[in-house]
Amino acid sequence: MSHFGDRLIEEGRRKRTALVVGLDPDLRFIPEAIRQGADPETGEGAEEAIFAFNRVVIDAVAEHVVAVKPQLAYYEIYGASGITALERTIRYARSKGLLVLNDAKRGDIGPTSAAYARAFLGDGPIAGDMVTVNPFLGSDGYMPFIETAEAAGKGVFVLLKTSNPSSGELQDLKLDGGGMLYMKLAEELERLAARSIGLHGYSCVGAVVGGTYPEEARAIRTALKSAIFLVPGYGAQGGSADSLRPFFDARGEGAIVSSSRAILYAYRNVGEHWSSLSEAEISRAIGEEASRAKDAINAVRGLRSQ
Amino acid sequence: MSHFGDRLIEEGRRKRTALVVGLDPDLRFIPEAIRQGADPETGEGAEEAIFAFNRVVIDAVAEHVVAVKPQLAYYEIYGASGITALERTIRYARSKGLLVLNDAKRGDIGPTSAAYARAFLGDGPIAGDMVTVNPFLGSDGYMPFIETAEAAGKGVFVLLKTSNPSSGELQDLKLDGGGMLYMKLAEELERLAARSIGLHGYSCVGAVVGGTYPEEARAIRTALKSAIFLVPGYGAQGGSADSLRPFFDARGEGAIVSSSRAILYAYRNVGEHWSSLSEAEISRAIGEEASRAKDAINAVRGLRSQ
Repeated sequence: MSHFGDRLIEEGRRKRTALVVGLDPDLRFIPEAIRQGADPETGEGAEEAIFAFNRVVIDAVAEHVVAVKPQLAYYEIYGASGITALERTIRYARSKGLLVLNDAKRGDIGPTSAAYARAFLGDGPIAGDMVTVNPFLGSDGYMPFIETAEAAGKGVFVLLKTSNPSSGELQDLKLDGGGMLYMKLAEELERLAARSIGLHGYSCVGAVVGGTYPEEARAIRTALKSAIFLVPGYGAQGGSADSLRPFFDARGEGAIVSSSRAILYAYRNVGEHWSSLSEAEISRAIGEEASRAKDAINAVRGLRSQ
Repeated sequence: MSHFGDRLIEEGRRKRTALVVGLDPDLRFIPEAIRQGADPETGEGAEEAIFAFNRVVIDAVAEHVVAVKPQLAYYEIYGASGITALERTIRYARSKGLLVLNDAKRGDIGPTSAAYARAFLGDGPIAGDMVTVNPFLGSDGYMPFIETAEAAGKGVFVLLKTSNPSSGELQDLKLDGGGMLYMKLAEELERLAARSIGLHGYSCVGAVVGGTYPEEARAIRTALKSAIFLVPGYGAQGGSADSLRPFFDARGEGAIVSSSRAILYAYRNVGEHWSSLSEAEISRAIGEEASRAKDAINAVRGLRSQ
C-alpha cells in the first residue's frame, strides 16, 4: 500500500495540477438540458439530475484536477435519493481515475467518529480517499479518522483556519499565555502528522487553511510543515491566485486548492439565458474555467502552462 | 405556529419525562431475531435490519421519552441504504407522536450550512424537529441553522461542552483576558437565544452540555439562562443521575437528557446468549431500561415516579 501523502503529491505531479473541484450540485443552478425537469423544492428527479450534472462536470474537469470534492450537504438535502446520487458520483469519479475527497467536516465522540471514519474512509458506498474533519471535540473526535486513514492508506484534512468571514470568531481567539487558537491546533497537528511522513515530506494528515487568509497560512506553515494544506475559498469566496503563494512549499507543492461554484456554474456568466444552454456549451464553459484556474494556480507555483 | 422552546417544555410536562433515547443502530449488537442475517461488514440487509431494530426501540421507549435522537454516523456507514432506514425511522417516530432530534453536529461555511439546515430542519426526507450544530466556523456556520429554526418553529442545539473525555482540549482553553472558551461561547449563545424566548422562559436555541461535566454545567448555566440543554453522556458514557442536578432549573426543567447505548443494548446484560433473545425479550429489556432512566432523572428533577 502506498503512502497517502506520496500518492497525492505524485498524482499532482503526474497531472501537473493542484486544483480540486468541489461537487456542490444545486438544482436551482443546473440548466434544463441536464436537470430534465427535476424540482429543486420537492426533490422530484433529484437523483438523476445531480448525477447527470456531476458526470458532465467530472468529464469536463478530469484532466485538470487532482481530485473532486463532493460537499455532503448538497446530497443530504434529498435524503436517500441524494446519497444515491453521491454513491454514483463517487463510482463514476473513480472510474475516471480521480481521487475523491468527501467534504463532510465530521467530528463527534470517539465511537461515533469511528463510525464516520468507516463511512468516509472505509470501503462502503460513500467512502472516498480523503475526508475533512472538525476538531472541536478534541483528540477523541479526530484520532479515529487519523488512525483509520493511516491503516487504510487514505487522507484526512483537519479544519484549522476556515475560509469563511467569521472563521476568526473562534479560530483566532487569543489564548492565555499568548498565541492564537489555530496556531495551537497547528502545533498539535504537526505532532500527529509527523508520525507518518512519506518520501516527499508530507503526511496523510492534512489541514484545511482558507485561501482567503494568506497571512495566517504563512504563520501556520512555520508550525505545521508535514501537512498538505487543503485550500478552499479560491474563486467564488474571493481568494485570488496571487494570494496562494504562502500555501505552497519552495517546490510549489504541499497544497491542493479547491474551487466549487466559480467552476461548476461558470456557464452562468453568459447572462440570463444560461438555463437554456446545451450540454456541450455547459461542458465547455466548465472545462475552460477549470483549465484557467489550474493555470493561474500553476503560475503561482512557478509552473508554466503547457 | 407554536414556539419551539415552549413545544419542547410542554411535551416534557405532558409525558412527564426529560429523557431522549439515541438511535445509534450498530448491526453487530442487534440480535438475530431482528437482524435477520444482515451483514455488519458488507451492509447486506442493513436497511431492513436497522429499521426493524429502530421500530422495536421506538415502540418500547415511546411512552418514556420526549424525543428520539438518530446519530447520523450509524446510517451514513451504509450509504443510501442507511439513509433510507433513517427516512423510515423518522417517519415511524413521527407517526408515534415523537419529536426527532438529528444528532448531526454539522457546521460549515454559510451557503453550505444553509443547505444542511434545509436538510435537517426543512421538510425533506431526513428533516426532523431539532439538530445539533458545531460552532467551530463561527457565526457564519451556525446562524443559518438558527435562522432556519426560528422561521420553521424548530430547534437547534449548539455544541458548547461535549461529553467526551478530550472535550477540554479545545473547549476548555483559557483565553487571554480570562475565562474558558466554552464560557465565551455560552455568552454569545445567550445573546442569540434571548432573541426568541417562549412563554416558559426558553429559546429555540439550545446548547449541548455533557452530562459528564456537572461543574462546567453550573458555570454555563449562570451565563446561558435561555437555552435548553441537551445533555448527552448519561448511561454508557459514565454520567450518573445525581450529577444531573445542575443541568435543570428550579422547576426541574430546561434540560433533556440523552442516553443511547445503555438503553438500546440493555438486553446484552443477560450475558452471551443475548444474540438469540426473542423480539419480545429485547423489547422488554429496552423498555424497562428506558423507564428506569426516566424515573432516575425525574427523581433528580424532584418529580416522583407515577
